Amino acid sequence: MAEAAAAQHQLLLACTGLLLLLLVSSSSVATARSIIKTLPGFPGELPFYLETGYVGVGENESVQLFYYFVKSQRNPVLDPLVLWLTGGPGCSTLSAFFYESGPVSFNLTYNGGLPTLELKEYTWTETLNIIYLDAPVGTGFSYSTTQEGYTTDDYKSAAQIYEFLKKWLIQHPEFLKNNLYIGGDSYSGIPVPMIVQDIYYDSERGGSPRLNLNLQGYVLGNPVTDAYIDKNSRVPFAHRLTLISDGLYESAKANCNGDYVNANASSEQCESDVQEIEELLRDINIQQILDPDCTFSSPIPNEEKSNLQRSLAENPTDFLSQLGEETMYFCHDYMYILSETWANNRDVREALHVREGTKGYWKRCNISGLAYTEDVISSVAYHRNLSKTGLRALIYSGDHDMSVPHIGTQQWIDSLNLTLADTWRAWYTEGQVAGYTKRYTNDDFALTYATVKGAGHVAPEYKPQQCYAMLKRWFAYYQL
Amino acid sequence: MAEAAAAQHQLLLACTGLLLLLLVSSSSVATARSIIKTLPGFPGELPFYLETGYVGVGENESVQLFYYFVKSQRNPVLDPLVLWLTGGPGCSTLSAFFYESGPVSFNLTYNGGLPTLELKEYTWTETLNIIYLDAPVGTGFSYSTTQEGYTTDDYKSAAQIYEFLKKWLIQHPEFLKNNLYIGGDSYSGIPVPMIVQDIYYDSERGGSPRLNLNLQGYVLGNPVTDAYIDKNSRVPFAHRLTLISDGLYESAKANCNGDYVNANASSEQCESDVQEIEELLRDINIQQILDPDCTFSSPIPNEEKSNLQRSLAENPTDFLSQLGEETMYFCHDYMYILSETWANNRDVREALHVREGTKGYWKRCNISGLAYTEDVISSVAYHRNLSKTGLRALIYSGDHDMSVPHIGTQQWIDSLNLTLADTWRAWYTEGQVAGYTKRYTNDDFALTYATVKGAGHVAPEYKPQQCYAMLKRWFAYYQL
Repeated sequence: MAEAAAAQHQLLLACTGLLLLLLVSSSSVATARSIIKTLPGFPGELPFYLETGYVGVGENESVQLFYYFVKSQRNPVLDPLVLWLTGGPGCSTLSAFFYESGPVSFNLTYNGGLPTLELKEYTWTETLNIIYLDAPVGTGFSYSTTQEGYTTDDYKSAAQIYEFLKKWLIQHPEFLKNNLYIGGDSYSGIPVPMIVQDIYYDSERGGSPRLNLNLQGYVLGNPVTDAYIDKNSRVPFAHRLTLISDGLYESAKANCNGDYVNANASSEQCESDVQEIEELLRDINIQQILDPDCTFSSPIPNEEKSNLQRSLAENPTDFLSQLGEETMYFCHDYMYILSETWANNRDVREALHVREGTKGYWKRCNISGLAYTEDVISSVAYHRNLSKTGLRALIYSGDHDMSVPHIGTQQWIDSLNLTLADTWRAWYTEGQVAGYTKRYTNDDFALTYATVKGAGHVAPEYKPQQCYAMLKRWFAYYQL
Repeated sequence: MAEAAAAQHQLLLACTGLLLLLLVSSSSVATARSIIKTLPGFPGELPFYLETGYVGVGENESVQLFYYFVKSQRNPVLDPLVLWLTGGPGCSTLSAFFYESGPVSFNLTYNGGLPTLELKEYTWTETLNIIYLDAPVGTGFSYSTTQEGYTTDDYKSAAQIYEFLKKWLIQHPEFLKNNLYIGGDSYSGIPVPMIVQDIYYDSERGGSPRLNLNLQGYVLGNPVTDAYIDKNSRVPFAHRLTLISDGLYESAKANCNGDYVNANASSEQCESDVQEIEELLRDINIQQILDPDCTFSSPIPNEEKSNLQRSLAENPTDFLSQLGEETMYFCHDYMYILSETWANNRDVREALHVREGTKGYWKRCNISGLAYTEDVISSVAYHRNLSKTGLRALIYSGDHDMSVPHIGTQQWIDSLNLTLADTWRAWYTEGQVAGYTKRYTNDDFALTYATVKGAGHVAPEYKPQQCYAMLKRWFAYYQL
């Protein structure tokens, strides 16, 4: 009887989905989805299912959010569905797709012209269905049909992403039953827990449309979480990595009372200590403190570097052609340029079914171009709420990232006052220590925290093998 | 008049040298020195001056210390003369020669047979005359003609090295005028300051033979200095690099009163904390905590690694042939094996003029084969004495080394109570932060301390470009 009822419920659900789908498809804009069989730069047909499309959200669906969807190469019916966001805000999800977890990436031996694509190892889509979303509006290929539509903030964007997800699932009812996870890195640390909370309470209340999202949990890498905690932890982090001296650190700690963010409101001595610290960190690559600083915005009085920078700014193709694969890996900023060259190619846009005239120059990270207000200063409260649910969370930190240091991340996790379920221990891949992990619980809630040894800000860019092993285990409910 | 007197003094000095040389050369053993024009594995003539030889020291010169001498490729007359030691004790100086500062090294694309040699970048012999010495006896190709000769300790070995240096200079009087430095890394941190002190006070007292060594200072990299301080600093180091948790570190600090070396003499809680710490660090590469642990002695329950290890132990040539250059760089233990294959080749020994029958199997590090007593537990007192002289010192630390962590090195330097002359600041190579440095003085004494960012235990093996830039500047009396 119970089974029959369940089957009936499933049928009803599918029908509702179908109905909503038909309803929605009456609007030609909202249903835009294309199956992509080939991609410029990739030889032959793609050996995985790739779909791109737009979903209209907000008032009159004036905001058109662009996505890339890759089906799991194992079992798309049984494997989890993950909605993945990138940071910035303003960074295109194509960055996550190419440089983190997607099935293809650029051949780093670049000889000019259109960058070529190749299959890559450790792609998460081997075992996960992933929707890569360009959000907030203005990011990647997402756009607005109205000028007002571009003005957004953390709350509005989180709501739009949730709306996107519901509509996407209505269009893809076959994924309604899959375990659903929301994930992302860097600035996604703000919207992800907001969206997760929205989904969770909505489904408890019975939201509209009643979709019964099969939400299981969330994943965050080096997540921006609390503007104060994150930034403040850079000083102890820099000390631990011996970028500032013991003496200066002790002085700053005493003079600033451990608050380095509001240094100018503290004593003059504190302000001067913090200035000295900033000077010491000026030329450090904040994303991975051991990598060279390859950005070409910082004015370093070094002729050799200046020449490189000029050449890069004036003729990136020529510049990149001269670099070896090794340099590209070491200077992620250079490797990133390939995505810009690729995504601004006319054939590529056509292949991706990007609507003509909706987007000017594509930037990997459209940081300055967004009309975005960061009005959620901390998402810790969301994490605290979620820790009272039956969800599960995986939070990981590349331990050489100074932009969102693991120290701050551990600090806010500790502030949730969870129960330590598994004590700090090494986790391994291929017989080597890949990092350290501990696990917390709170009744049915479970949070796994892990460091990725030697990784920078977006950990999978630095340690793809380790990160995929971690993700795969966690999604399969194994211990790291 | 003063000039004439100086010239006379120089002449006298040269004559004394010549006289002593004639005296010494009557013993055929003691004068063994050969100019090496070609080396097996290197194509054509060597484009640098290489000399090898033995110098007999100790009673009846029963201890025969082997050396490799490379003349500066800039100006051997004006450039400094450096006596360089390696660590262990028991590691051959060929390791420093090939993997650190010498002009040639192995081609890491290994296809079996005799490893091939190639010129390398950032060789210190571009601007320095370097004597690479196999010491203490039993190390590399150094040997003893008597069984008792092999029994040695820190004091005896330091005295023998000093005796070596005097005799070598008597044989090479043309280098008596050069600025003289003693240097080394790792365990050399014990003998180097001892030898420097011997030379310094001997020349003050007017030792015999009266050689007027032109001693200027000393250089040490990640030096073993104080058994207690060095080892104890591993725990705060591991915490800083987030290998152990904040909670465990705080607990250990409180329970052990900051003394992790004598944990078993402390509380039970301290002992258990330290055991937990050791467990967390068990599979970490102590030489560079971010590198994989490629040693094949540690029994890790991982099939893939075990297979590698078995293959390596049973057939190193085949094993190495399968590895790429990248793996060799990443797994220094594998790269080291090339030196073993090379130095145990019959043609190589002949080319180096190694005396037949004096040496069995050559080990890069003959750690277990030495009859050596480490009886100097700390060389801090020597550093303290030297800080009252007019000498100069350069101490550097690869900041990712956990075997002799920079934390301990900075601690003993601080204990010398010197005056801070230049405050902690970044030092640069090629427009990038290569590390941090500060400078101390004590009247005429000057000590430069520097970290090498991202480097492991023997820093030049990891960061050759940065280390050579640092050395070159320091030897030229520039600021880093």
